[in-house]
Amino acid sequence: MNILIKGVQLDGNTRDIFIKDGTIEEISENCIRKADKIINGKDKAALPSFINGHTHAAMTLMRGYADDMPLKNWLEEKIWPLEAKLTEEDIYWGSKFACLEMIKNGITVFNDMYWFWEATAKAVCDMGVRGFISAVFIDMFDENKGKEQIDLNLKLFELSEKYKPHVTFTFGPHAIYTVCRESLQWMRDFSEKHGILIHMHLSEIEEETKFSQEKYGLSPTEFLNSTGILSDRFIGCHGCWLDEKDCTILKNCNAKLVHIPVSNLKLSVGRMFPHQLLKNGLNIPFCFGTDGCASNNHLDIIETMKYASLLAKFSTNDPTMLPARETFDLATKTAASIFFLPEWEIKAGNSPDIILVDLNRPELNPGFDIYSDIVYASNGYIVDTVICMGRVLMENRYVPGDEEIMKQAKKTAKSLVAR
Amino acid sequence: MNILIKGVQLDGNTRDIFIKDGTIEEISENCIRKADKIINGKDKAALPSFINGHTHAAMTLMRGYADDMPLKNWLEEKIWPLEAKLTEEDIYWGSKFACLEMIKNGITVFNDMYWFWEATAKAVCDMGVRGFISAVFIDMFDENKGKEQIDLNLKLFELSEKYKPHVTFTFGPHAIYTVCRESLQWMRDFSEKHGILIHMHLSEIEEETKFSQEKYGLSPTEFLNSTGILSDRFIGCHGCWLDEKDCTILKNCNAKLVHIPVSNLKLSVGRMFPHQLLKNGLNIPFCFGTDGCASNNHLDIIETMKYASLLAKFSTNDPTMLPARETFDLATKTAASIFFLPEWEIKAGNSPDIILVDLNRPELNPGFDIYSDIVYASNGYIVDTVICMGRVLMENRYVPGDEEIMKQAKKTAKSLVAR
Repeated sequence: MNILIKGVQLDGNTRDIFIKDGTIEEISENCIRKADKIINGKDKAALPSFINGHTHAAMTLMRGYADDMPLKNWLEEKIWPLEAKLTEEDIYWGSKFACLEMIKNGITVFNDMYWFWEATAKAVCDMGVRGFISAVFIDMFDENKGKEQIDLNLKLFELSEKYKPHVTFTFGPHAIYTVCRESLQWMRDFSEKHGILIHMHLSEIEEETKFSQEKYGLSPTEFLNSTGILSDRFIGCHGCWLDEKDCTILKNCNAKLVHIPVSNLKLSVGRMFPHQLLKNGLNIPFCFGTDGCASNNHLDIIETMKYASLLAKFSTNDPTMLPARETFDLATKTAASIFFLPEWEIKAGNSPDIILVDLNRPELNPGFDIYSDIVYASNGYIVDTVICMGRVLMENRYVPGDEEIMKQAKKTAKSLVAR
Repeated sequence: MNILIKGVQLDGNTRDIFIKDGTIEEISENCIRKADKIINGKDKAALPSFINGHTHAAMTLMRGYADDMPLKNWLEEKIWPLEAKLTEEDIYWGSKFACLEMIKNGITVFNDMYWFWEATAKAVCDMGVRGFISAVFIDMFDENKGKEQIDLNLKLFELSEKYKPHVTFTFGPHAIYTVCRESLQWMRDFSEKHGILIHMHLSEIEEETKFSQEKYGLSPTEFLNSTGILSDRFIGCHGCWLDEKDCTILKNCNAKLVHIPVSNLKLSVGRMFPHQLLKNGLNIPFCFGTDGCASNNHLDIIETMKYASLLAKFSTNDPTMLPARETFDLATKTAASIFFLPEWEIKAGNSPDIILVDLNRPELNPGFDIYSDIVYASNGYIVDTVICMGRVLMENRYVPGDEEIMKQAKKTAKSLVAR
């Protein structure tokens, strides 16, 4: 499949972009090659797509079902009872609905941790996006449960071959308070042997630190370091309660972080992401995540970028922190490197996914700086066209089948709460 | 002008709404009256419009021109030199552009403080919205300047008759560090006599508190109280550095506040809005403001509501703070009462401005709670139709003349920075 984007704005110039099977073959002022699909780029700008570093996709089904509650009641009275009733079919529609919302907001890659792995994998393939998918790994320090989880993950790892190249299998150890040392060590070895990414909640809440100190006499990061699981394949999500010692360990192990500002505020986790530490030289690579729709409630990385940049400024008392371009690059270029994706910049020879944004929106005008306008003044609705792996997934904001997906997701959600 | 909205969702029911000259005359299951304009409300919900409690509208011209800078350099090197070159024509196009953006985000009322009062008043009338407009009052403790400003305000007050009912004249004393006691006392008397609202920056930054302590030996609020300017017509904007004593004074004087979370984070003002104090019984009425586009950079009250709610939760460590419905009501009902507007709820006999939101957006589904979905999962783009003072300003997201306004605003902004 060949795509030719005619006369689009690229880094301040008007250019043609020719894409063959997902790889940019030519960027020029006038490309004369024949293409299967021609896109008019007038009044649009081409940019790399966004990468969502942490979510629980199918939780779109629970959007707006339970908000404004203390964390404990929210989980015990609302979320867990619903999750206990989830079926594979529910997850399929919830994940598909999440993919639809992400495409509409210019996100083509997401890092997921949830139940019924294969349902999410199917949804990802059907929607044509890229998913790094893990099954939630919880053993509650029970040896038998640990073995079951290992067996399940071995099965899913084999199964994942079927869903390539859209889906990448990852490990999803839930957190240090739900997974035992032995399970983590097994994941460490298997991950090393097969190059598998490890996606884990890390230092999200104070209770986690307390638990770790009581059980291991170590901080969560120190404990993980003692298991040997930290490496450049380790992706720790949240990280609000990390201290300087923790950040030093993560940096030395080449581990990565995902910053999830909206969820952290909404659930009142009590501390900000450690921008001050990262500012002082502990430059651990990080990208942004939305979290699931029960705790955000919106899968929009543009929204998340603004929160991240503004909270970085406020929490360090320094308005020069996370400037617009740097923030944009974290959500695209750095995120791609964290997931070992190819170079995520629009240059000949590269294979990034591509979005076109509509420059005729009020918030992108007068247009002094497109990165500032995107990060500080806009939201996912500026995205007009989405190209993923060489296929057009959205054009003029239309995603084929969107009404049916919304209808099915709505039906599924209403049936779930009525069960 | 009569408008009939057919079959729209209102508080969970399907209803017809009949509006005559801006007043809701009938809400029923099947209205058979004849209307000049019929709107199909299918798959839409009717809600009161949003009120923007604090902005500098024409600063849309400076969106993205200078970000990520320390406050002092930002003002001295970028904003003030540009402002010195502003003309009446610039302000007209900048304000018109701001009105366009606000209409697109469902805002029909805004509280403004900027230069060239009449240009903004004209823009407000031409766009058909409602503006509470003040001229920035700055005398820098110079008696002659104070007199000039008073003369100007007297002139504008008379002139404002011409722009009724779209425009309401207000006083805009800039801040306690730029306006002397005598000027404030003059505004106090004139405001009392003519029922004029007073719109002032209050306790935004730490330097303001220091200045006030050094000059008056009082906090900014204590100083204002000593001038007698505080009343139910006083609207203090920002308020991040207010302490318990200040809040008690404001409450006793029936003064109001505007919370401006996005700007406060972006400019790193160093403290959060005093939600903790307000939670503890000092319930001063407040609404939300976007601030100008140089320091936000987006005129979207839905975005601002999410920031406000999430920061209230995080800063008080209480996820039940500012729940979705309460947040929505602050931005509509409470805001209307702060500006002495009529009751801002969609009920027969009331005259609120009305928006219709498009329920077919992914972020408003599955649709368990429309207030949660609006506040936590959406943004201004869900607004489909805007009705202000009985006139349709936007339908299907189209505002007549939008392309021309954007073109002129862009041209004006580019010429301004090139001067």
